[in-house]
Amino acid sequence: MSGLPRLKHRVYSILKVSRKPGDASWNFDVFIIILIVGNVAAMLLESIEPIRLKYSAEFKLFEIFSVTIFSLEYILRIWTANISPAYPSPVKGRLKYALSPLALVDLLAILPFFLPFVGVDLRLLRVLRIFRIFRVFKIARYVTALALMNRVVSQKKEELVLSLIFTLSLLLITSTLMYYIENEAQPENFSSIPETMWWGIATLTTVGYGDIYPVTPLGQFMGGVIAVIGIGLFALPTGILASGFSEELTNRKEKINCCPTCGRPKIQEYEI
Amino acid sequence: MSGLPRLKHRVYSILKVSRKPGDASWNFDVFIIILIVGNVAAMLLESIEPIRLKYSAEFKLFEIFSVTIFSLEYILRIWTANISPAYPSPVKGRLKYALSPLALVDLLAILPFFLPFVGVDLRLLRVLRIFRIFRVFKIARYVTALALMNRVVSQKKEELVLSLIFTLSLLLITSTLMYYIENEAQPENFSSIPETMWWGIATLTTVGYGDIYPVTPLGQFMGGVIAVIGIGLFALPTGILASGFSEELTNRKEKINCCPTCGRPKIQEYEI
Amino acid sequence: MSGLPRLKHRVYSILKVSRKPGDASWNFDVFIIILIVGNVAAMLLESIEPIRLKYSAEFKLFEIFSVTIFSLEYILRIWTANISPAYPSPVKGRLKYALSPLALVDLLAILPFFLPFVGVDLRLLRVLRIFRIFRVFKIARYVTALALMNRVVSQKKEELVLSLIFTLSLLLITSTLMYYIENEAQPENFSSIPETMWWGIATLTTVGYGDIYPVTPLGQFMGGVIAVIGIGLFALPTGILASGFSEELTNRKEKINCCPTCGRPKIQEYEI
Amino acid sequence: MSGLPRLKHRVYSILKVSRKPGDASWNFDVFIIILIVGNVAAMLLESIEPIRLKYSAEFKLFEIFSVTIFSLEYILRIWTANISPAYPSPVKGRLKYALSPLALVDLLAILPFFLPFVGVDLRLLRVLRIFRIFRVFKIARYVTALALMNRVVSQKKEELVLSLIFTLSLLLITSTLMYYIENEAQPENFSSIPETMWWGIATLTTVGYGDIYPVTPLGQFMGGVIAVIGIGLFALPTGILASGFSEELTNRKEKINCCPTCGRPKIQEYEI
Repeated sequence: MSGLPRLKHRVYSILKVSRKPGDASWNFDVFIIILIVGNVAAMLLESIEPIRLKYSAEFKLFEIFSVTIFSLEYILRIWTANISPAYPSPVKGRLKYALSPLALVDLLAILPFFLPFVGVDLRLLRVLRIFRIFRVFKIARYVTALALMNRVVSQKKEELVLSLIFTLSLLLITSTLMYYIENEAQPENFSSIPETMWWGIATLTTVGYGDIYPVTPLGQFMGGVIAVIGIGLFALPTGILASGFSEELTNRKEKINCCPTCGRPKIQEYEI
Repeated sequence: MSGLPRLKHRVYSILKVSRKPGDASWNFDVFIIILIVGNVAAMLLESIEPIRLKYSAEFKLFEIFSVTIFSLEYILRIWTANISPAYPSPVKGRLKYALSPLALVDLLAILPFFLPFVGVDLRLLRVLRIFRIFRVFKIARYVTALALMNRVVSQKKEELVLSLIFTLSLLLITSTLMYYIENEAQPENFSSIPETMWWGIATLTTVGYGDIYPVTPLGQFMGGVIAVIGIGLFALPTGILASGFSEELTNRKEKINCCPTCGRPKIQEYEI
Repeated sequence: MSGLPRLKHRVYSILKVSRKPGDASWNFDVFIIILIVGNVAAMLLESIEPIRLKYSAEFKLFEIFSVTIFSLEYILRIWTANISPAYPSPVKGRLKYALSPLALVDLLAILPFFLPFVGVDLRLLRVLRIFRIFRVFKIARYVTALALMNRVVSQKKEELVLSLIFTLSLLLITSTLMYYIENEAQPENFSSIPETMWWGIATLTTVGYGDIYPVTPLGQFMGGVIAVIGIGLFALPTGILASGFSEELTNRKEKINCCPTCGRPKIQEYEI
Repeated sequence: MSGLPRLKHRVYSILKVSRKPGDASWNFDVFIIILIVGNVAAMLLESIEPIRLKYSAEFKLFEIFSVTIFSLEYILRIWTANISPAYPSPVKGRLKYALSPLALVDLLAILPFFLPFVGVDLRLLRVLRIFRIFRVFKIARYVTALALMNRVVSQKKEELVLSLIFTLSLLLITSTLMYYIENEAQPENFSSIPETMWWGIATLTTVGYGDIYPVTPLGQFMGGVIAVIGIGLFALPTGILASGFSEELTNRKEKINCCPTCGRPKIQEYEI
């Protein structure tokens, strides 16, 4: 292997997340993380008007620099994509890679720069650059924890979705009742059911901004009941996730080839 | 089987929740879900005054259409009720079905339309149409999760009720004390114990609207203690439910016909 | 057994919490619960000024009636106390009973009525009547749940106390820092460290009344960090209690005389 | 052993946390705790202006007294440090001890008194004296609980760090979106992304001060979604910690030398 193919493999191995601190791939990862953090910081600072006006040239320069690096990286990733066994075909494989979530995020993060003529303000998309940082978390330390959390959440998907549906139904019913109770006393704050839902969500989640709240005795009674029920809103998903994490740990242990309880070797292994 | 009985069975099988995507019963379910969501959306939009005034005719029309469908569905459900083995008798079975919670919800959801002469504004009852959506959740995917959550909550009923009683006692005692502490400094906000309970519930549930709060040092000290105790209010039911979910999972595993820990076949099965 | 001793035993059995719905003791329990609830309701209503002024005679009458019943009950309880095997001696046993927490609550709940000449307003103590309701919860249904919750909380006492100490230290440190940060910008709201602790407690418990909050960038950064740490304040005791409940259930199962996992009879029993 | 070495050992044993109530070391611990609590109380009271002005002499006196004791204690601790087997060398061991976290806290807690000429107001550092109290918690009662909590948190470090990263990413993305949504309607409250992050953190943690909140329908919808997601922010770390505590308890039991489930003696012990 020599020349271009060799270079391609070298580029590919650098672009991949490094597992060995100190090598070229590691240094590249560190550089990209710094660049992403710098971009996020620039985005935050640029939104502060006095800073934006004073340093507009510097922000522009840094933006050009960042987009150049990110674009180069994106092109190299597309070029080397078919080295990965997941995307073998030169054309279809590369297209498939380009449509993968992480690659799309990469594209969307640089696109606004190249599409100034669209008219719509797409600078908002720069926030997507934060997601790029997740690529770097694919390192050994976090990969187990991330996989565990992912497994727990997807195993408990049905229960969590049901909790959400209960919450939304409760929100709808509460807000409708509250609208009929409070509308007369505060026609401005509880002007419609959707407006009342803003109160409902702030109460159920216990945020409680205090911009609208019931003032009639019946409304306050209802509000109190909802706030207490809101506690269940925290208890249900928490309980579900807690048992999910415990279950995962138990399952992992049972995979070990002897009884973890009494130390005897297992006779047969069952998938439970 | 032919003619009316055959039609009746056909209607019954369509009204039941489908388990096979794509058949007539499935399409009917989808249609009803869309109609329910549409009704809820209409109810929300109609509560916004400018929209209500502008589209009053359209809302009326949609309401007539919806109630016609729902009424027809209700009549057909009553008619075919005695096909179900749960309600065999033609008269008593149908009456028993009509008094089941889901059938009552169906009735209450259409009743307001037919009782405009009652005088009281019953449009509020339309919110019950949301509950109808639960019927559709009886599909295989969610049935296990729903049953699990139901089992956990009912198994931990005593603990949860006790938590609620502790909360209410705490609320009552706190509010009484706070009333005596703050009444002098803020006679308007802490004007009576029930009024103070409104503060109490907002603090214990950590909603904290900020419409009333203690201002005297002693009152603020009490308020701080209550807010910290309020954390226990979250911790207790959450802990109870978490252990309930874990317990259910353990029980389910033990039902499997061999020891899940060491893989040996069970000698006897015990109901624990 | 006849005459007075017989009456005494009869009174004692009526005063004890009934376990059989419908008998004399049961009816007495129901009557006392209604009276307690009535007293609490009266206390709440009496705190509302217009109601107090309008129905002052009725409130007075109900108070005299209630205190008469409660006093009679108290005297009878003291009289029959030495029937219980826990307090055998006629004098020392009765005194020991009179100093038990529940008997003291009974006494404190009626005392304010007999001590109007004390000068201090003791009506506040009437709130203690709520506690009397706990006596009735000693029925079979709740006794297991109550014992379980009690056992979990006392087994995890050390962990819970440590959580509280962490919270208080965090509160103190945060408030001191915040006082130095915000005092200059808002000398009125953050006027002293104890005053700042009122902000700190509202933030750590996520109540967030919104009466005081940081306005300087550094203060808002600190406030954000504290609010996030506040989540741990919920997570720690909840996690502790959740594992406590799970542990209790496991222990209970292990007491059953055969292995709950594989169904084999246990060889030896160990206290774990 | 006599003379200075004997005295040194005596001092060392007194400075160590006592495990026997009533001896000299115990009395010293109690005295130091009282002094620390007194210092914290003085710090709180001194921050209240009227009290500071009135009792400035007394505060000064108490400060001199406290610093004298603390300085003496610090010098004695450094002197006796090389008795501990952890710091054997007279010079290097003592230096190593002086750089240990607890010794640094001790130094920082007295330093402000000796460095008045620094110019910067270092009185703030006095808050560090609170940390000194932790030294006393190294008593048998709490040592197990503290070690357990420590083990759980460090075992779940990866999951907890990931939860924090998710939270911060969510905060950043939400605040950026919200800034673009609400900036036009409320240019003063949502003036920049960092300013909007203050809203974001108050909402995600459900503190909800109510100083800034969205007013546009789209902003309120977004705010509602974020508030609901904020519940997950509580559920995730709580679930992680709950399973961590359960796991620790299971591990501890498995260390006992026979199967806790069925009572049979273990054949081999495995580190799981």
